[in-house]
Amino acid sequence: MNKRLVLRLLGVILVIEALAMVPATLLALLYGDGDFLAMLESVALPLVIGLPLWRLIKPVDRNLRAREGFAVVALAWILLSVFGAMPFMLSGMLPNFTDALFEAASGFTTTGATVLTDFDTPRHGVMFWRSFTHWIGGMGVLVLTLALIPQMTGRTSHLVRAESPGPSLSKIVPKMGDTARILYTIYGAMTLIEFVALMFAGMSPYDAAIHAMGTAGTGGFSNYAASVGGFDSVAVDVIITVFMFLFGVNFVVFYHISNGEWREAFRNEELRWYLAISGGAILLMTLFVLPQYGSFWTALRHGSFQVGSIISTTGYATADFNLWPQSARMLAFILMFVGSCAGSTAGGLKIVRVAQLCKLGRREIRRSFQPRSVHVIRFDGHGVDETMLSQTAVFFFVYVALILVGALAASLLGSYDLETNFTAALTCVSNVGPGLGAVGPAGSFAGYTPAAKVMFTALMLCGRLELFPILALFAPVLWRR
Amino acid sequence: MNKRLVLRLLGVILVIEALAMVPATLLALLYGDGDFLAMLESVALPLVIGLPLWRLIKPVDRNLRAREGFAVVALAWILLSVFGAMPFMLSGMLPNFTDALFEAASGFTTTGATVLTDFDTPRHGVMFWRSFTHWIGGMGVLVLTLALIPQMTGRTSHLVRAESPGPSLSKIVPKMGDTARILYTIYGAMTLIEFVALMFAGMSPYDAAIHAMGTAGTGGFSNYAASVGGFDSVAVDVIITVFMFLFGVNFVVFYHISNGEWREAFRNEELRWYLAISGGAILLMTLFVLPQYGSFWTALRHGSFQVGSIISTTGYATADFNLWPQSARMLAFILMFVGSCAGSTAGGLKIVRVAQLCKLGRREIRRSFQPRSVHVIRFDGHGVDETMLSQTAVFFFVYVALILVGALAASLLGSYDLETNFTAALTCVSNVGPGLGAVGPAGSFAGYTPAAKVMFTALMLCGRLELFPILALFAPVLWRR
Repeated sequence: MNKRLVLRLLGVILVIEALAMVPATLLALLYGDGDFLAMLESVALPLVIGLPLWRLIKPVDRNLRAREGFAVVALAWILLSVFGAMPFMLSGMLPNFTDALFEAASGFTTTGATVLTDFDTPRHGVMFWRSFTHWIGGMGVLVLTLALIPQMTGRTSHLVRAESPGPSLSKIVPKMGDTARILYTIYGAMTLIEFVALMFAGMSPYDAAIHAMGTAGTGGFSNYAASVGGFDSVAVDVIITVFMFLFGVNFVVFYHISNGEWREAFRNEELRWYLAISGGAILLMTLFVLPQYGSFWTALRHGSFQVGSIISTTGYATADFNLWPQSARMLAFILMFVGSCAGSTAGGLKIVRVAQLCKLGRREIRRSFQPRSVHVIRFDGHGVDETMLSQTAVFFFVYVALILVGALAASLLGSYDLETNFTAALTCVSNVGPGLGAVGPAGSFAGYTPAAKVMFTALMLCGRLELFPILALFAPVLWRR
Repeated sequence: MNKRLVLRLLGVILVIEALAMVPATLLALLYGDGDFLAMLESVALPLVIGLPLWRLIKPVDRNLRAREGFAVVALAWILLSVFGAMPFMLSGMLPNFTDALFEAASGFTTTGATVLTDFDTPRHGVMFWRSFTHWIGGMGVLVLTLALIPQMTGRTSHLVRAESPGPSLSKIVPKMGDTARILYTIYGAMTLIEFVALMFAGMSPYDAAIHAMGTAGTGGFSNYAASVGGFDSVAVDVIITVFMFLFGVNFVVFYHISNGEWREAFRNEELRWYLAISGGAILLMTLFVLPQYGSFWTALRHGSFQVGSIISTTGYATADFNLWPQSARMLAFILMFVGSCAGSTAGGLKIVRVAQLCKLGRREIRRSFQPRSVHVIRFDGHGVDETMLSQTAVFFFVYVALILVGALAASLLGSYDLETNFTAALTCVSNVGPGLGAVGPAGSFAGYTPAAKVMFTALMLCGRLELFPILALFAPVLWRR
């Protein structure tokens, strides 16, 4: 392990985080809610620690291997959460460190699960930071770093591979720095469009910014206790529904669209599965909640919003789906595993994995009675490598095992029922946000013990980084020279 | 598809089923509870249909390929359940066909989930049949057929492969018919030992027979509503705990022991995993329920019984674990997935699969930051084929997917909560028996709608036959010539 290089890169990332806090600090000054000093201290802390690490440590070997890439990404996300928690702690919004850490990790990992119960005290600066963590966490902090400082280090593909959501890394253009810049440009443009649309729908600029960032990162933090439901506006619901689904699409699709390559954009097989699964889920959900709402359009409005919110792993709510019929709750539960497309800002298993698992399952059924048949699994028109397919299936096992272990830990560290504990672990690993029971859309994680909150923080980080970077930290071999 | 051969084999199996009903019919006559006629009719039905199929259909081609093997096993188990339901229906114990079918399938698949609520009306013959289905279902009806009529057909390995629990088929001796006979001899001897032990512990011969058969098949039907807890005897609890764990062991181990090959017997890696997982689970469970019981020995007694009951997928209960602390309930929930050794009478994922999945997960974590490392997974000292490992991982996905689909169907077809619906689907696929909530040890499946009961019947059959034979019935290619 090249420790000097790892430390230097962590320094860079802390400086980037300090810079990322500047807009929230200016807003705190502008609104004068009294959080300016807390924000200023929060900016100073990572700057004071990060700048010397960056400028003073000169690594002898600038070669970034896979293991350094993984260590950097895992440690960076832990540090980001620790320092990102400072505004919540220092402002007195969440005075306990474990609460503040949970909230920051929930922000960066775009989970959107919250321990906040007081939404009434005005804290425009800190609340902006809370949602801004979604925005930079969604596309990735390492990706942002590469977009800003492309010459930072030699081979950066390991960094992006460890941080980007999904099993396959799509290099849009040959240089990783250029790819990062293109991704952030598309991302910023789409966020801006949603921001304007929400203003047209009647939101204040501040509320529109909060919810546009929460949607773009597929995070789900709102500055209202009632989430999006508090606006009670069809226009707002429709805009956010559409954008939740959009931000669940692989950004490569948008890149092709922005270049006018429509045919290329829609040749994406994962996109077709995403549309099919989402469409089917919306139809079922609408039918399931129809008895509750009576009107088809109301059922469709809430059904499609909630399907979009869960499958994109955003976690906004217009209705308390925890109180919906059992069939609708079970469908929500199943969708919490699925997630959206690889290369989007969404979490979960990812559609490409679910699709490949379905194809693998189908092949296995057939192979059981035709043991000598050979059947290559195709995706996007090409045969998929068997090793990659096997990795996908193993990923699913590790995913479920992690949820089960987390649920067992939650039931030891908290006083909730099985449904709450299981969905709490699930929603953290999948980065959705709300679960069912006490952690449903109307509830929060506030009632869990501090130890449970730290455990959930770890689950959220595991989920956002696709399990392995965080789990690898516990592998002794990672730390060997 | 060689339909004549399939029909002929189904005929043989129906005749075997008719023969299997004879002991219960004699008991009905002996006890004179009034079920003799019902039992007699139930014997006649499969005999009248099966005998002509067996004797009159002459297949041109006696070659049994994998697809015929699968079709025979899947259809045989469905037919067995349909005809095995007759005694329950005709005796008036469960007058509705869906109830009787559920109970028969639950018996043959050794699930032990019940819709029976009246345990007080004396029905010695029918209740004996109910438990006898566990005994023949545990080791397998096709295996029994082979033990009785080895010359029945040419290649029989496909039949045994489709019916035997676990991913690998262990041929003890070269001839499949001899293997089947050895297996049934060991099985019978062990059942007899437990029967005698239970009589020494104070049970009546009838009760001892019922519970010995229920343990041997890892089924779980009791003739008392309070299950094993009704005896309130430490000796009974200990005997059944020990035998539940024993019947979760691969029978090849007992074969080696009976030959004095102790070294060979304990070289089995799955056995070591089984002991480690069981031991760890007993320790945790005892700690979790300690606050409830106060005394360590009482906690250990109920904790080890329940761990044994769930991991061996038997489903007997000495305590209502549905009312245990949330940590104990969650542990029970997790154990419901696991199951015992391949080649035992138990259900679930099987220890060998869980062990291989753990090794695969560990390798994947390591490979994430050492992408070029090559690491062969070893089991029983040998490198395991990558295709088989991949199949194991895909099996896990299909298993979980089936449970989720079943749980969604259950929530549409019943009026229970998510916990009940999910654990009901899980306990059926894993062939455990009780779940949590309304289907907990003190509850039953009686409250579900008839449609739900048919769905659960399908899940139990899927689970017992390791998913693929039943799922393959829906593959059009199975039926092609």
